[in-house]
Amino acid sequence: MDITTGIGLAAGVIVIATLILMGGDFRMFYDVHAVIIIGGGSLAATLIRFPMVAMLHGLPLGMKFAFTMRSTTSRELVDEIAGLAEIARKQGPVGLEKVETEDAFLAKGIRFVADGYDADFIRDNLERDRDNFLTHLDEGQKIYRAIGDCAPAFGMIGTLIGMVQMFANMTDPSKLGPFMAVALLATLYGALVANLFCLPIADKLHVKLVEEEVNRTLIIDGILMIRESKSPTLVREMLLAYLPESHRHEAAEPVPA
Amino acid sequence: MDITTGIGLAAGVIVIATLILMGGDFRMFYDVHAVIIIGGGSLAATLIRFPMVAMLHGLPLGMKFAFTMRSTTSRELVDEIAGLAEIARKQGPVGLEKVETEDAFLAKGIRFVADGYDADFIRDNLERDRDNFLTHLDEGQKIYRAIGDCAPAFGMIGTLIGMVQMFANMTDPSKLGPFMAVALLATLYGALVANLFCLPIADKLHVKLVEEEVNRTLIIDGILMIRESKSPTLVREMLLAYLPESHRHEAAEPVPA
Amino acid sequence: MDITTGIGLAAGVIVIATLILMGGDFRMFYDVHAVIIIGGGSLAATLIRFPMVAMLHGLPLGMKFAFTMRSTTSRELVDEIAGLAEIARKQGPVGLEKVETEDAFLAKGIRFVADGYDADFIRDNLERDRDNFLTHLDEGQKIYRAIGDCAPAFGMIGTLIGMVQMFANMTDPSKLGPFMAVALLATLYGALVANLFCLPIADKLHVKLVEEEVNRTLIIDGILMIRESKSPTLVREMLLAYLPESHRHEAAEPVPA
Amino acid sequence: MDITTGIGLAAGVIVIATLILMGGDFRMFYDVHAVIIIGGGSLAATLIRFPMVAMLHGLPLGMKFAFTMRSTTSRELVDEIAGLAEIARKQGPVGLEKVETEDAFLAKGIRFVADGYDADFIRDNLERDRDNFLTHLDEGQKIYRAIGDCAPAFGMIGTLIGMVQMFANMTDPSKLGPFMAVALLATLYGALVANLFCLPIADKLHVKLVEEEVNRTLIIDGILMIRESKSPTLVREMLLAYLPESHRHEAAEPVPA
Amino acid sequence: MDITTGIGLAAGVIVIATLILMGGDFRMFYDVHAVIIIGGGSLAATLIRFPMVAMLHGLPLGMKFAFTMRSTTSRELVDEIAGLAEIARKQGPVGLEKVETEDAFLAKGIRFVADGYDADFIRDNLERDRDNFLTHLDEGQKIYRAIGDCAPAFGMIGTLIGMVQMFANMTDPSKLGPFMAVALLATLYGALVANLFCLPIADKLHVKLVEEEVNRTLIIDGILMIRESKSPTLVREMLLAYLPESHRHEAAEPVPA
Repeated sequence: MDITTGIGLAAGVIVIATLILMGGDFRMFYDVHAVIIIGGGSLAATLIRFPMVAMLHGLPLGMKFAFTMRSTTSRELVDEIAGLAEIARKQGPVGLEKVETEDAFLAKGIRFVADGYDADFIRDNLERDRDNFLTHLDEGQKIYRAIGDCAPAFGMIGTLIGMVQMFANMTDPSKLGPFMAVALLATLYGALVANLFCLPIADKLHVKLVEEEVNRTLIIDGILMIRESKSPTLVREMLLAYLPESHRHEAAEPVPA
Repeated sequence: MDITTGIGLAAGVIVIATLILMGGDFRMFYDVHAVIIIGGGSLAATLIRFPMVAMLHGLPLGMKFAFTMRSTTSRELVDEIAGLAEIARKQGPVGLEKVETEDAFLAKGIRFVADGYDADFIRDNLERDRDNFLTHLDEGQKIYRAIGDCAPAFGMIGTLIGMVQMFANMTDPSKLGPFMAVALLATLYGALVANLFCLPIADKLHVKLVEEEVNRTLIIDGILMIRESKSPTLVREMLLAYLPESHRHEAAEPVPA
Repeated sequence: MDITTGIGLAAGVIVIATLILMGGDFRMFYDVHAVIIIGGGSLAATLIRFPMVAMLHGLPLGMKFAFTMRSTTSRELVDEIAGLAEIARKQGPVGLEKVETEDAFLAKGIRFVADGYDADFIRDNLERDRDNFLTHLDEGQKIYRAIGDCAPAFGMIGTLIGMVQMFANMTDPSKLGPFMAVALLATLYGALVANLFCLPIADKLHVKLVEEEVNRTLIIDGILMIRESKSPTLVREMLLAYLPESHRHEAAEPVPA
Repeated sequence: MDITTGIGLAAGVIVIATLILMGGDFRMFYDVHAVIIIGGGSLAATLIRFPMVAMLHGLPLGMKFAFTMRSTTSRELVDEIAGLAEIARKQGPVGLEKVETEDAFLAKGIRFVADGYDADFIRDNLERDRDNFLTHLDEGQKIYRAIGDCAPAFGMIGTLIGMVQMFANMTDPSKLGPFMAVALLATLYGALVANLFCLPIADKLHVKLVEEEVNRTLIIDGILMIRESKSPTLVREMLLAYLPESHRHEAAEPVPA
Repeated sequence: MDITTGIGLAAGVIVIATLILMGGDFRMFYDVHAVIIIGGGSLAATLIRFPMVAMLHGLPLGMKFAFTMRSTTSRELVDEIAGLAEIARKQGPVGLEKVETEDAFLAKGIRFVADGYDADFIRDNLERDRDNFLTHLDEGQKIYRAIGDCAPAFGMIGTLIGMVQMFANMTDPSKLGPFMAVALLATLYGALVANLFCLPIADKLHVKLVEEEVNRTLIIDGILMIRESKSPTLVREMLLAYLPESHRHEAAEPVPA
């Protein structure tokens, strides 16, 4: 569970709710026109922009990954894989059958090794999995960003429609107020959807994308080394060498020489 | 038929129509001044920006390709070409004469092989075709994007012209409303043309451009291998190797080793 | 004559004139303050930005090239140069003396060959000519773009000056209208100068720049090959090989092998 | 102490305070709604955007480094390290034990050498330290920039909320003023937070980041050369060669040959 | 003297003064609040952004170089250096002692040669001079650009402060005008400072920076060749070869072969 995404969203809702309640009630800030134009307009533009398949995969995957977090760092993953290499060395591939692991991608790789699949097949299958996953996560990021980019424009469109209706029907200037309030709601909704939801989510997905690419490539390399019965020490060292600088030292304990 | 482009446009129209009808009628939102400035201004700026030939080819081609979709994925195309190689091997080039295929570009290539044209000629002719096609599709994308970029500016120009006329003739402030409503319509039209139509279309054309470049290059390579009577297995494997990562595994069925 | 630039500008003027006439008369849209701030402000900022020599060359050259068009495509140019190589081969350099050609740059090169100048001198002289020309055309493009970028800012400055004067003198709110109309004219002028004139012209000049670089380099290479009495077929083939992909096939007629 | 950051912030506060006092009192410019939306909204969006660990390290580190300044230039650092090499050469590593230095990073390196740690361990440990430090400083810079980018948007959101409440409750237009004043405060707060605080701080942190990378890498190289008992002259020359052009000559006194 | 910078600034002042005088008097456009927020705010943000030393060197150097112009082009410089090589060859380094030159950087180099300094020392000293100079000119450019970027934001902040005070004190709507006029002055000042002064100056400094880098490097190379008593013809040819394409032909007179 990526707790900051949830806390951030909750904080955003609380801030807005507090402001609204301090100055009146919620009904004043609900307007079905604004919901239709922001939701419908963004949906329409996104449908034109992206292929259907990208939306069906990208939106839910993005939402899921914005809120979940790897329970293990890259560094812990290296330790876990080195541990598996130990088991595979001592008990043979069969020993991996009873191993349980939280990471579904790693679990799949272990099962392949335990079932004795050929190295080429394991590599092909896992790489295809990783590539599909990264493609969909990237699509998710792009879709959230595209919505964040066009929502304020649809907010402005909604406000313009409201203002045209208001001005066209205007006979008594003193009634202008409530109409104006409603017209402004579309702009408000658009700004909130973009700045409090879509753009921060897209930014977080970008971070996750980089992270998952490192971790899944690391798992594939580790699984293949286990398949070839490499020694745990070698597995550990080669995987650490693979990590980018900033990940490598994450949990390393300096030991005096 | 690229169904999401159509659905997206329809959704956009329905959303705007719903909003308008909820607050009055359509006549309030039709203004000939706004149509003239958005249509005429964008046309004028686009005429200055692009050569005539680019507009005549790019605009209709872009419109067509935003709405149509390859019936076959890259992966299915490889299978189809491998099938053709099989036929050419067994029955000779003549066997290709009776083959029917949906893709016009592939069909042209098959006809060339069946008619026994020289490999150099086939390559030159098909590459020229592909390049012309991609150039025109790219021009189409650029034109839609240019219109999407300048339409909001012309909307603002239209609104400014309307406001100047309104303020200049203003004697009774109570009549300001309807004039203001009309002036705002130009801004509204400009925002709709850009955000609901031109910019999403340009984005989709960019995706199509990348896709068509991959597919047409793949077809050219495949046709030339058929011309040289390469074995279907080899054709299949070489074309798969040619595909970019994300396309390669699209439909691959993992088979246990 | 680059007809689309002219048509585009005429269309823009007609669109704006139509809108103005539909709502009143022209006098309402002429304001000497707005002319001074847009013209004077843009001129002042451009003078600070660019060296004097760049402005004197770039502005008129840009204006000229936005409206003129090569009568010959790159492909026709290759044919014409191959024809000249034929003449030079048969009749010697002297035969080129009577040749007439539309392109002034090509004509200069032909005269050099006919007059028997040394190859190094011809190359140096023509390359210097080409580089000077391209530098000035590029300066022209940059100046139009800079004006297009700052004109809206000066429009806003003009409107702010007008509004300050209006508000400062305001005693009777009912007289606010005509003053406001005049103040808005500066913003309108700035938006028109930028979006209907300067930015599209700058975009077209960029296209012309790329085109002229290809053509003039092609002419230099061709002239030097004629100087060395290369065979027309060789000249043709080497120049075609030189053309970028998209230009090469422009007019090529596919001939069955 | 980086005095300009402090002076700049103080100057900003004085300028704003002067303007406010010239036109009334402070109470007019304090609004709890505006504080909530700018503070709360920016916090919420930043929580979604960045992992918790990045915020906990980056924000305080950034704040600290925006206000502190290296007491020594790169050039003086080279002199100091050369001096240490002199001591190490004459008295052996033990001589370094009594050395005192202002720079904590350099001090750590000296202690390692004095304690006789192995070169590999020293390099690993110091490089890890440097990388962690630079990563956190970079995170700090990104967080301040992200807040600077979204604060104006939350200012607009706050103003929109205020205006909706104002228009919705509006019965007497003469009371519009004070409500409008309060609504505008959110936009004002957002603009001040971004332009007077976050964006300039992010820019300064970027400068510091480049500087610290140069200096800490220089210290690591110097410490390792001292560990290997290189001669002070050699240490000095190699470190100077390492410095980027602009740093190298900083304090060099030209001496006639 | 770079005459266009001066003419441009004068033209800008005249344009603004004309507009102001056409609609009233200057007092209407002077407001101490606007001066404080634009001047003070930009100063404060710039102090936070840049180190003190960069501001002390960059601002005056930038101002000086925006208004001054090399009296000699790169091409004339080559001729002058070739002439000096001639003198040095005929009369020995001592002959250079009496030479007078306008360019202070060239003069320094000549003096070094005349005084018989060692080549390494001359190179080191002149390169350090050139690098320091270019660094400061670049800082100047960045500071003017940073001020040009933030001045409009401080203009908006000033206007917001003015509007908050106006609305808060508003009891009689008929008095709104003069207050509004004053509030708008900050936005006007910010736009003028950015668009008529800082951004064009920064653009011109960028051109000067490129020019000075070419010229000073050319002078260093020339001085070193004179030091080594190279022949004037060789000096001339090597320096011309060094010039970038566009500079090389500046004043070259084509001579028939």
